[in-house]
Amino acid sequence: MAVLSGIHPIREALQAGRPFDRVLIAKGSGGARLQELIELCRLASVPVRFEPRSALDRIAGSSAHQGVVALGAAKRYATLEDVLPSGGLLVVLDGVEDPHNLGAIIRTAHAAGASAVCIPERRAAGLTGVVAKAAAGALEYLPVVRLGNINQSLELMKNRGFWIYGIDERGQETYDQVDYASPAALVFGAEGHGLHQQVRNHCDVLVRIPMAGRIASLNVSVAAGVVLFEWKRRSKPA
Amino acid sequence: MAVLSGIHPIREALQAGRPFDRVLIAKGSGGARLQELIELCRLASVPVRFEPRSALDRIAGSSAHQGVVALGAAKRYATLEDVLPSGGLLVVLDGVEDPHNLGAIIRTAHAAGASAVCIPERRAAGLTGVVAKAAAGALEYLPVVRLGNINQSLELMKNRGFWIYGIDERGQETYDQVDYASPAALVFGAEGHGLHQQVRNHCDVLVRIPMAGRIASLNVSVAAGVVLFEWKRRSKPA
Repeated sequence: MAVLSGIHPIREALQAGRPFDRVLIAKGSGGARLQELIELCRLASVPVRFEPRSALDRIAGSSAHQGVVALGAAKRYATLEDVLPSGGLLVVLDGVEDPHNLGAIIRTAHAAGASAVCIPERRAAGLTGVVAKAAAGALEYLPVVRLGNINQSLELMKNRGFWIYGIDERGQETYDQVDYASPAALVFGAEGHGLHQQVRNHCDVLVRIPMAGRIASLNVSVAAGVVLFEWKRRSKPA
Repeated sequence: MAVLSGIHPIREALQAGRPFDRVLIAKGSGGARLQELIELCRLASVPVRFEPRSALDRIAGSSAHQGVVALGAAKRYATLEDVLPSGGLLVVLDGVEDPHNLGAIIRTAHAAGASAVCIPERRAAGLTGVVAKAAAGALEYLPVVRLGNINQSLELMKNRGFWIYGIDERGQETYDQVDYASPAALVFGAEGHGLHQQVRNHCDVLVRIPMAGRIASLNVSVAAGVVLFEWKRRSKPA
């Protein structure tokens, strides 16, 4: 597990959105800068634990940690500008909240050959240890981007030549008939909500998965698997 | 939530394999028949709670419950003989242990138009409330069969004309190229283990999902979605 120590590096990492599992603070430490760090952890939903200083010495491998050690930075996020030049397929999640689903989607996206997974900064699961476990190693290989504003990001993708496919029950086209352009982005909605109206408006095409039976939708990670592997099947060299 | 009350109906239901969430027993009740019921619950891994008699009166809607009320019978299992005549597609799970995955697979199987899902009696998730929730209502529509012996069941299916497709990383054919016969059974292995050797030997064809990237497998409910919807896509009337 990645370990970062010292007030300044941890504050920078938190501000950059690096997703720690938890932050350990030496019992008896204090001061305004440490207080500010605790507040940053609270804002980022990173759990804070107070431990004996000797425990921090052991974990950090030295005593030069200024009373604070951060654990389990699963991964540093990529930026949209990092991944747009790769072209290919981007997977955009409009607010998937369950970390098991997020992990399974990252795993599936990597296995289908996507270039990156993009998740919103707010109202969504972050890259916690649960996500890393459900991703079964794929988090090490696939870039994950956090989008400050998903609608603006979709417009930026369009300006760079991406076609945007929203997966939506009300889609006029079906995932197995629609033409997939390249580069493309596939947008999946949150569990039980589907795509937000505004996000739907930013899509070039709305695509549905035809369903037998009497229920309306699939689990979002299953839906992502169905569409991503259809995309992969059809992207094969002829 | 379904409620069943009375010693005899609950004993019968337990013996028939009906999967209760929990059984409530009125504090101060006793006797050999109740003791036998508690033992049946233990064998079926159904939790037993002791509650005031007034709580049972309220839940059962009367005081004629003989001191015992069973809650949350998600669904009665079907038998293999019930579902074999339907033909079509059976989904067989060789020991899926995570209830979220089991629920998602039941949901997906129903949405793809499968006839039933078959799960082993042992070393596998049963139909708990978690499964029912993850199945998102599909448990009401799709028969679920418990198999005492999966290998014997596969042989029985073959004798009735089913072709058995095992989903396995080492499969020689790929899910998107193989011919799907009808009727057919698709067999999926447990998370992180794949198919048991014996089960593999009972399959007519081993089929793999070609993967990009650097990880070896998909989440089992995602893999089921990919293969089941490919089967559905190709089963469409031409």
